[in-house]
Amino acid sequence: MVNHALSVTRAENFASWYQAVVDQGDLAEESGVRGCMIIKPWGYGIWQRMQELLDRRIRETGHENCYFPLFIPLSFIAKEAQHVEGFAKEMAVVTHHRLKMIDGELIPDPDAKLEEPLIVRPTSETLIGAAFQRWIRSHRDLPLLLNQWANVVRWEMRTRLFLRTTEFLWQEGHTAHASEQEALEETLRVLEIYRSFAEDALAMPVITGEKPAHERFPGADNTFSIEAMMQDGKALQAGTSHYLGTHFSIAQNIRYQTEHGDLAYAHTTSWGVSTRLVGGVVMTHGDDDGLRLPPIIAPKQIVLVPILRDRPEDSAVVEYCDALAADLRILSAFGEPIRAYVDRKTGRPVDKRWAWVKKGVPIICEIGGRDVSSNAVSFIRRDRLRKGEKIDTVNCSRDEFVSTAEALLREVQTSLHAEARERLFSNIRPDIDTLADLHSFFQTAESEFRGWVSVPWSKPEGDALNAVEAQLKAAKISIRNAPLKQDSVEGRRCIFTNQPAKEFVLVGRTY
Amino acid sequence: MVNHALSVTRAENFASWYQAVVDQGDLAEESGVRGCMIIKPWGYGIWQRMQELLDRRIRETGHENCYFPLFIPLSFIAKEAQHVEGFAKEMAVVTHHRLKMIDGELIPDPDAKLEEPLIVRPTSETLIGAAFQRWIRSHRDLPLLLNQWANVVRWEMRTRLFLRTTEFLWQEGHTAHASEQEALEETLRVLEIYRSFAEDALAMPVITGEKPAHERFPGADNTFSIEAMMQDGKALQAGTSHYLGTHFSIAQNIRYQTEHGDLAYAHTTSWGVSTRLVGGVVMTHGDDDGLRLPPIIAPKQIVLVPILRDRPEDSAVVEYCDALAADLRILSAFGEPIRAYVDRKTGRPVDKRWAWVKKGVPIICEIGGRDVSSNAVSFIRRDRLRKGEKIDTVNCSRDEFVSTAEALLREVQTSLHAEARERLFSNIRPDIDTLADLHSFFQTAESEFRGWVSVPWSKPEGDALNAVEAQLKAAKISIRNAPLKQDSVEGRRCIFTNQPAKEFVLVGRTY
Repeated sequence: MVNHALSVTRAENFASWYQAVVDQGDLAEESGVRGCMIIKPWGYGIWQRMQELLDRRIRETGHENCYFPLFIPLSFIAKEAQHVEGFAKEMAVVTHHRLKMIDGELIPDPDAKLEEPLIVRPTSETLIGAAFQRWIRSHRDLPLLLNQWANVVRWEMRTRLFLRTTEFLWQEGHTAHASEQEALEETLRVLEIYRSFAEDALAMPVITGEKPAHERFPGADNTFSIEAMMQDGKALQAGTSHYLGTHFSIAQNIRYQTEHGDLAYAHTTSWGVSTRLVGGVVMTHGDDDGLRLPPIIAPKQIVLVPILRDRPEDSAVVEYCDALAADLRILSAFGEPIRAYVDRKTGRPVDKRWAWVKKGVPIICEIGGRDVSSNAVSFIRRDRLRKGEKIDTVNCSRDEFVSTAEALLREVQTSLHAEARERLFSNIRPDIDTLADLHSFFQTAESEFRGWVSVPWSKPEGDALNAVEAQLKAAKISIRNAPLKQDSVEGRRCIFTNQPAKEFVLVGRTY
Repeated sequence: MVNHALSVTRAENFASWYQAVVDQGDLAEESGVRGCMIIKPWGYGIWQRMQELLDRRIRETGHENCYFPLFIPLSFIAKEAQHVEGFAKEMAVVTHHRLKMIDGELIPDPDAKLEEPLIVRPTSETLIGAAFQRWIRSHRDLPLLLNQWANVVRWEMRTRLFLRTTEFLWQEGHTAHASEQEALEETLRVLEIYRSFAEDALAMPVITGEKPAHERFPGADNTFSIEAMMQDGKALQAGTSHYLGTHFSIAQNIRYQTEHGDLAYAHTTSWGVSTRLVGGVVMTHGDDDGLRLPPIIAPKQIVLVPILRDRPEDSAVVEYCDALAADLRILSAFGEPIRAYVDRKTGRPVDKRWAWVKKGVPIICEIGGRDVSSNAVSFIRRDRLRKGEKIDTVNCSRDEFVSTAEALLREVQTSLHAEARERLFSNIRPDIDTLADLHSFFQTAESEFRGWVSVPWSKPEGDALNAVEAQLKAAKISIRNAPLKQDSVEGRRCIFTNQPAKEFVLVGRTY
């Protein structure tokens, strides 16, 4: 039996395994502050990589970054009744602006009660909409394409590191357009940015599609998502892009003068991805030895562990590593200098190696005196750590290693993506035709891998949709989205209503 | 008389001028949320440039980024009585986690009152200290060098965009070390990072030095600062670095096992700069036509305004601009591709030019049909906009412009720095020897330019220091810092106490 680095495997208990990867990989930990996490340097390094790469794509498509306040006056929220309804009102409320020591106890100063409570932003549509109202006068001011990187707070009862936390980090894009068509194009343009970012950078294949009406963002006319399949078969909604119609514009009076001189409401969009993506990467690529990181988002791509023995030869080993790292750093992979690092910390080399394995570093080298004297490199590829039960250590000459480093990193990136893609596409079942079969398919232990099912449906509305929602909820499944890429649904009937089907939707368990 | 772009000059009213630059340069605006600003794309672009450049320096010196929660439980704050005292307890307090509609009014749900109120972080020493306590076990865990980019909130009664806002963005570094010496070295290493960043990137000359005891960060053994002189002669504290001794370690039990096996308290530091730096750049470099940006932090370095006349020739002008911008973008300045931009928005070219002047773009080109036919470029350098009363437009061949673009940007960067440096060093008076003279020097209208005074002092403590503080306060001036670079104070007497002087300190008005 293989002796894995983690004490629990995916097969044994996926939820515990996830927690172990996050913990042992030093990604994040509970903070002691209800539902809020501490993102540790390795976890934050991954997020910062994501941020750099996605920020570039967002800016290259004409969006500009800005920053809006953390606090939203209660009256702004009250204006948006429907919006509030959707957020279930679970928000952090600031009511005082001072502490005071009274009878030896520090308490909110009763004399410093705010006239109007402030809400810690759960998302910024209301505040940004108010600014749009001030800034947009004419069709020449459109499109207005903004984005911000910020923290937001949604009071959560049950939290899981990265996947669902009370405070999380995200980007939220907000745009205003002259027409429905332009706004819808924007919504889909961003969806495509998210898709290509997920596939190319995170090596995380996703299905792009539209959410059914009951899963829309509160106030949206259309909500699109990217959905990724985790290794337990569940779906992770990894990013959303909303066409908000004129809903927010009407509520906030965002109007512009058209070319013909009359006033019209702007069409707005909003879209976001969050630190949840880090959790998605863990559940997409992790194995029973810990995290495996796609090189593009790995804070360190190649780590060199010098094997030191408290002997005079040690300095030669360290020098050899430093020189090798320097040679790697002047090379490029994926258009950026290779991120090579020499781990000079004290500690047993074997412990250091396993720490980097659990953190998911794509290529880990262990360099000892023998490598130095033979001008060689011993390394492991994190994406294929083992051959059978044994660690698959590769030996090659130093020259060969340096000259193939970029190709190796590309291979790791590609192989992680291919593996995840294979899992996704081989686990969407198209052959379940009845509601009874659908239910029985998912009527298994939650730990059993089930993947998703593609079913035809008639896009019911109102009560008919409520009935579908209730059925799905009872079976602990949900409609993920209606993929943009659709096969012909001609002649098929809705699995829920038996009406003629209008499209296929993906059904699955979710996070 | 020169007709300036702004309706108010520095000489007329510096405070109104500042507001006008921020407003007309589209940097930021009031949000309608008490004391919180909206940082608009141009202002945020400057901050993002600062962030990129400073983040690189912070990481290159071994610090790792991470992220700690927005909220701090009240009990954490209560533990740190002295620390709290210093922050005057003006903090945003979260007391509820849900809103509820009661009698048609949305209010904090009385059933969702938090058992323990949460404070929106004014700074994160308490939370990060608690993590240090968990993470640090042995001398091998030290030094621990962390940094985070975050928003913080300090309830302010009188706010000014960028300079003093209730919410602001900053980086806060937090480190732990085995010895006092290592921690002090770190404190000064970061101070030097701040100094070189301010001088090299912001072209903002600063004086590094130690704050007097009564101006220290609450809980610090030593507080160091960089102080910059604004164009009204006032000092802006632009960054601080604190050696916290074992104060926080003792309060939070941050101990490590030494090499000899006994337990010792860690020595900690903290340090930060904030969006206040944007205000500092405005007041260092702005002129009566608006902002002037050092090219290194300018979101756009060269803007090309095509002069369009709704004629068929227009397309040739736009093409010419696009090709020129493309040629510029493949060049490098300051180690990065030149940021060239073609302003294709509709509107009168002259209005567009002035908008970019007010935003402070280092080089602004206006390209008309004549430039296209003669293969030329007409441009203005923002650092020397006028010759006498007239705009100083330079004409040169396209080839010459492209081949000198990098040098031009360097010249702008250098000239802005030289101008500010000249102002700083020629306005520190070393020749005021008595307290009476000091007071009468500053006893003028606040609008009168006064600069700083370098005075010898005896570094009094306790009641003697309190007396000095009261005198200074009455004169509306303060000790900025005791510069690290000191002339000999031998034989001099303290201007306040008449005791033998120990060092020189800088005295001035401040923000």
